[in-house]
Amino acid sequence: MADIKALPFPFPLDRNAVALIVIDMQRDFTEPGGFGESLGNDVSLVAGIVPDVKRLIEGFRDAGLPVIHTMECHSPDLSDLPPAKQNRGNPKLRIGDMGPMGRILISGEPGTSILPDVAPVDGELVIEKPGKGAFYATPLGDELKAKGIRQLVFAGVTTEVCVQTTMREANDRGYECLIIEEATASYFPHFKAATLDMIRAQGGIVGWTAKLDDLLEVLSHA
Amino acid sequence: MADIKALPFPFPLDRNAVALIVIDMQRDFTEPGGFGESLGNDVSLVAGIVPDVKRLIEGFRDAGLPVIHTMECHSPDLSDLPPAKQNRGNPKLRIGDMGPMGRILISGEPGTSILPDVAPVDGELVIEKPGKGAFYATPLGDELKAKGIRQLVFAGVTTEVCVQTTMREANDRGYECLIIEEATASYFPHFKAATLDMIRAQGGIVGWTAKLDDLLEVLSHA
Repeated sequence: MADIKALPFPFPLDRNAVALIVIDMQRDFTEPGGFGESLGNDVSLVAGIVPDVKRLIEGFRDAGLPVIHTMECHSPDLSDLPPAKQNRGNPKLRIGDMGPMGRILISGEPGTSILPDVAPVDGELVIEKPGKGAFYATPLGDELKAKGIRQLVFAGVTTEVCVQTTMREANDRGYECLIIEEATASYFPHFKAATLDMIRAQGGIVGWTAKLDDLLEVLSHA
Repeated sequence: MADIKALPFPFPLDRNAVALIVIDMQRDFTEPGGFGESLGNDVSLVAGIVPDVKRLIEGFRDAGLPVIHTMECHSPDLSDLPPAKQNRGNPKLRIGDMGPMGRILISGEPGTSILPDVAPVDGELVIEKPGKGAFYATPLGDELKAKGIRQLVFAGVTTEVCVQTTMREANDRGYECLIIEEATASYFPHFKAATLDMIRAQGGIVGWTAKLDDLLEVLSHA
């Protein structure tokens, strides 16, 4: 065990039971010209975290610790897409339609893939998820149990949607969850700030928040 | 179908597929002298919504529509309590310890029960849940499927913790979710406000928000 400086109190890192989970660093959510931008979002805010997410991933790889990646996407036949998600707000472009980088949020399409700078390497678990949370309708829970993981370090986008939803699922399942402030972003900075506050409120009711360098400092000392 | 005035756009109420779900209106979270207050929370903020939650429940009952209640609690032997939840922050009072109104968050204890003013009546489903979300490790999902429910109207406490977590779980599972602003509360008003904003952002990415009277007006016209 080694304590990482964190809020609301130090996080007791257990190298034998920790994994990094990087949420939805997909091209369509982060690249200019992608689906996210076509909805009117300023993707520069989320694209800006890529260097820090990369440093975090490399810190885990260098320490020989597991890295998990998630992608929000659906099967090409849309069998895992609830009508409530497909039709919400009667949008011009729906999931499964042809978008700027292939069919929107469909598994295997170019826009659905993870940004090259933070892409998975051989041997890393990649979870395709139909919801915002990575536990629902995926093998993530079983995979974590099989690996003996009890602690999850969170990064990715967007903070208040897929990251927060997955962190809340993990917290209910008994995982100790730590989110790295510089390695997560939202299209709306005030939502990111509020989410971090909610996570660490009431004695860490959802988990812990920490700065990237404070985690990397501990990771680099084996 | 009847449209309810809501944000970010009208909510298409389907009387044949809607249920009200009232989250964790338990004595220990809302009464002076309870566990919530002993943690330093100002329970008057959450106690203040009781009259509106009661009006909402009665609106559903009068319309002959289902009402579901949840309670956060654990079995007396603590077998459903993850160590990460029990020990978070090394508190003076832990779940299962004797508190001001019986063993804290244990099924069947006085403090765990729902406030009399908004308590379940015979025939209403009551879900005991070990997490913040009401779908994890409970029969809620199966019960909703069996009843043909596709829409959930949310009330209860606290907005950013158990209400939000359950609403996000429901949204991933394809339910159309509407939260009633006056019928939910937090110990921290800015967290309630931020959560409502996050729910209806990006075209209702988690669901809809509405005012109580706008819902009751539609419910009362059969």
